[in-house]
Amino acid sequence: MKISFRPIGVVKTPFQEPQGTPIQPQAGAGVEGSVEIYPEFKAGLKDIEGFSHIVLIYHFHLMKTYKLHAKPFMDNEERGIFAIRGPARPNPIGLSIVELVRVEDNVLHIRDLDIIDGTPLLDIKPYVPRFDEANAVRTGWLKTNIHKLEEMRDDGRFAKQPQASRKDGSDK
Amino acid sequence: MKISFRPIGVVKTPFQEPQGTPIQPQAGAGVEGSVEIYPEFKAGLKDIEGFSHIVLIYHFHLMKTYKLHAKPFMDNEERGIFAIRGPARPNPIGLSIVELVRVEDNVLHIRDLDIIDGTPLLDIKPYVPRFDEANAVRTGWLKTNIHKLEEMRDDGRFAKQPQASRKDGSDK
Repeated sequence: MKISFRPIGVVKTPFQEPQGTPIQPQAGAGVEGSVEIYPEFKAGLKDIEGFSHIVLIYHFHLMKTYKLHAKPFMDNEERGIFAIRGPARPNPIGLSIVELVRVEDNVLHIRDLDIIDGTPLLDIKPYVPRFDEANAVRTGWLKTNIHKLEEMRDDGRFAKQPQASRKDGSDK
Repeated sequence: MKISFRPIGVVKTPFQEPQGTPIQPQAGAGVEGSVEIYPEFKAGLKDIEGFSHIVLIYHFHLMKTYKLHAKPFMDNEERGIFAIRGPARPNPIGLSIVELVRVEDNVLHIRDLDIIDGTPLLDIKPYVPRFDEANAVRTGWLKTNIHKLEEMRDDGRFAKQPQASRKDGSDK
């Protein structure tokens, strides 16, 4: 069963390649960019300017394959792909919460970016603390690694391993 | 340009139809269900048991069309689809943060559900407060409506309007 989506727009950022890109919005604090929504979807932006933060859901378009086990940027051990946030996922869907600075026609000016330039955007949702904040009491392997967040950058490991999935048990 | 995904599993919940389903996990507090991951992706669950909460990304599979303007459950005004969380989106992608109660082989037992039984699952990410909590200072139209969350239930409005998109300016 296939589920088909198409981009509603494109993300514009200063990051031209995975290497060196912040690995989460917090590590990209202050970095500015924009989202350009295609004209046919522009009407859907009504009222979005009322929200200080938005959830961007996008396609990790540089991923050609996936891994079921992978070493996350902030750890030296292989973890299950569903226990890390890296891009080499069975469905390469990215999720970032960014600050919405202002809206100009069909362009959203955003801040705090960890997204590569040219990324196809799939959806925008308003960020609502009541919906999106969980009282998370356990954060697994990240508990002892989260302090590395600001210093860490993408080293290109996911984009450079086209054959890796076979070694890791995937069926692709 | 089409982007194709396929389900990595299916969500099992007590909710058989949109009508009456909680509209966010907080409104479905205590409701238990499960995620059944297909065998070929099971290895990706390694280490996930360390996280108390997970992000589920799924397909709003009952949506046959979309609207660019729609009346959200908690308001009486039409809002842009990207400023609300309802399912009738150009790419019908759902996002819920749920509690991970326990992992049993390829089944994740979860709690706090707003998802319809049989929903195709696209991705799981570990919920990490540092990544997923924004200091959201503005929440737009929801600011004066959020108190309705617990009492609100899906009334089936999105699933019942197959022709509505034309009235709202979409090109479908």
